[in-house]
Amino acid sequence: MFTCDKNRMEDKINTFSKFGDAGHGGITRYSLSPEANMARDEFVKRMTAIGAEIETDDMANMYATIPGSEPGLKRIVMASHCDSVKNGGNYDGILGVMGAMEVLETVVAENIPHRHPLTAMIWTNEEGSLYPPAMMSSGVICGKFDKDTMLASKSVLDKTTTFGEALDKSPYKGDIKNRLNPNDYMTMFELHIEQGPILEDAGNDIGVVTCVLGMFNYRIKFYGQSDHAGTTPMHKRQDALFAAAQALCYLHEEIDKLGRPELVYTTGEIVCHPCVHTVIPDMIDFSIDVRHEDPKVLEQVLAIVRSLPEKEWAKCKCEVVKAWARDTVYFDKELVSFVKESADELGTKNQLINSGAGHDAQYVSYMMPTTMIFVASKDGHSHCEPEYTSPEQCTAGASVMLNAVLKVDKK
Amino acid sequence: MFTCDKNRMEDKINTFSKFGDAGHGGITRYSLSPEANMARDEFVKRMTAIGAEIETDDMANMYATIPGSEPGLKRIVMASHCDSVKNGGNYDGILGVMGAMEVLETVVAENIPHRHPLTAMIWTNEEGSLYPPAMMSSGVICGKFDKDTMLASKSVLDKTTTFGEALDKSPYKGDIKNRLNPNDYMTMFELHIEQGPILEDAGNDIGVVTCVLGMFNYRIKFYGQSDHAGTTPMHKRQDALFAAAQALCYLHEEIDKLGRPELVYTTGEIVCHPCVHTVIPDMIDFSIDVRHEDPKVLEQVLAIVRSLPEKEWAKCKCEVVKAWARDTVYFDKELVSFVKESADELGTKNQLINSGAGHDAQYVSYMMPTTMIFVASKDGHSHCEPEYTSPEQCTAGASVMLNAVLKVDKK
Repeated sequence: MFTCDKNRMEDKINTFSKFGDAGHGGITRYSLSPEANMARDEFVKRMTAIGAEIETDDMANMYATIPGSEPGLKRIVMASHCDSVKNGGNYDGILGVMGAMEVLETVVAENIPHRHPLTAMIWTNEEGSLYPPAMMSSGVICGKFDKDTMLASKSVLDKTTTFGEALDKSPYKGDIKNRLNPNDYMTMFELHIEQGPILEDAGNDIGVVTCVLGMFNYRIKFYGQSDHAGTTPMHKRQDALFAAAQALCYLHEEIDKLGRPELVYTTGEIVCHPCVHTVIPDMIDFSIDVRHEDPKVLEQVLAIVRSLPEKEWAKCKCEVVKAWARDTVYFDKELVSFVKESADELGTKNQLINSGAGHDAQYVSYMMPTTMIFVASKDGHSHCEPEYTSPEQCTAGASVMLNAVLKVDKK
Repeated sequence: MFTCDKNRMEDKINTFSKFGDAGHGGITRYSLSPEANMARDEFVKRMTAIGAEIETDDMANMYATIPGSEPGLKRIVMASHCDSVKNGGNYDGILGVMGAMEVLETVVAENIPHRHPLTAMIWTNEEGSLYPPAMMSSGVICGKFDKDTMLASKSVLDKTTTFGEALDKSPYKGDIKNRLNPNDYMTMFELHIEQGPILEDAGNDIGVVTCVLGMFNYRIKFYGQSDHAGTTPMHKRQDALFAAAQALCYLHEEIDKLGRPELVYTTGEIVCHPCVHTVIPDMIDFSIDVRHEDPKVLEQVLAIVRSLPEKEWAKCKCEVVKAWARDTVYFDKELVSFVKESADELGTKNQLINSGAGHDAQYVSYMMPTTMIFVASKDGHSHCEPEYTSPEQCTAGASVMLNAVLKVDKK
């Protein structure tokens, strides 16, 4: 067994935390921003220092590769992203890049024999915070998104600048021939923070990720009648907000009856019209996001959601509209077993876990064997400045990835 | 008994409906806009034609006065507003102006004897749609609002232009000495549409208004914890929106238990943070507007609202904040009895009614004896283009006002 170096890892964490420092322990580092370029420059500096060859592709994804001992073998890649949400933390995304760098640095420093070339990679615009959608580049390269549509995505801040314009100005825009592809690359690993409280609650440091949860996202709409708050008797009203409140409570009640503690469902967005304190709302539109590994469970929840329009909701009309859905994405079983063995052999406290959040790895898994490694998130927080994983846990995650990579290398 | 002229009334309705025609049967006529000036020009034209003297005050309120037979007597004023909400109807506000004009025109045309000078008046910016708040000028003149604060009110459209700048450009800005005041004016009447369905449901055309309902407006806030929709187990959540939905249902249940069918309460506005479909909401802030004539009933509802923070709401913190409140404003008993007698003597189908909505008359009632007359609103609609009251009902409302004015005049 080999282990990565905690001091070197900690130095990377401290260094990268400066690029986009948002003042309260975290960062704002939008994709293709000057701050993101500082992180990319640092990646180049450190990878060049260990003799890695740097390549970039047409989406500005970056690849740093050290050669293997046997010519003609495919590369093993470890990848994540260096962009963040607004006022995000120092771990989401960048940890997977730092972990990949740390694996390469350890291999070089300790002269660890390996047959395959090893690549540390940065995905462009995973968060989609400035230019939606999320997982943009992996979506393009894995054939999920149309590239031209993505290039036309507009900045959510100035509503004018496109992703394509920002990409053209990037010093890291490269050649399409350098894209991640199944002819040149064998497998992909992604080290990431859990972004939830499950590992911490179980007293574990490492999560061996088996899948990204299937999910559906629907919009539930109620249509009533706008009337004056002071002059309309209660029995004459069609109050869309009261209808929506009743429906939300009903959904919680009915979904909880399924008795699936691992099921998660969320109404995060609610739109009210006209949203004036003296007017009865005539339209409410809210989201429902439901996630579970088992499609049968998702079907049960969907049946509850779809039954809403048949019921009586404060004399309002109810409409249920599908926004999108995805099936559970299972990671490669052999890679998952390599991660599990490495985590056990290193003596880490670990468990199998699924990913409720989406990651670049889920798109890559359609193209080549892929898997993920999670490290614990303090208090389950992510996408916020207090996001935290200890240097020991970060280093342990990198060590697990290193040994899993070496198992693939030996195949 | 005297009656107003339906044809003349209908001509006014058709004429004024053109000033700000919004294309679907209604109007958008913001205060001090070119469209509002067209309505004011028409007011001047018609009132000058019957020999009325036109005056304007420093808030651009307009007064058209015909003399009475006895020198030195105070004026009797009939007033309402000519501005509308966005995509409002052809009756809210302007009906009271047209009714006042119709009364003066009838008095002149039929040479009806009267001792007091009679004034038709336009209040500036009753709706407050472009420059909040509502009832701005009556609030200033009756000492409820600070004039300088009102002059600084910014356009909700361009967020730049102030009410004061628009007022300076108005051809109808006049002298502060012309303001409505209790030395020169004896009583005020306001004819208005009901804006609710009560008259229509009872088969009545005329409402004899006794009061403007007391009300309170509170903000109810829930504070939870923002976490990732995909990675946070249900039992770990503090979902502010689920808390708010439960509280809304609870409020309906508890308030309805009071068994007060004439009580109205409304949540018209809801604000959600961060309002992203993949994030558990950490803050919800909603309004509650409650109206009833009896302060004891309002107290009972307030006790229910104030008890919310003591209860358990999805592990979220609840806060209840007073926005504002007003006591029930009772109109002058003698004036109310004059309106009732006139409505009966004219053989109209009428009833006593209260006003759930606020009107300029409520502020004026602190300064001089004041009352209101309602006419029925088709389907109870107002503040929307389908707003409708028949020409017969509009004329009946003016006739009731005319005869009530003559009763005051005889005192």
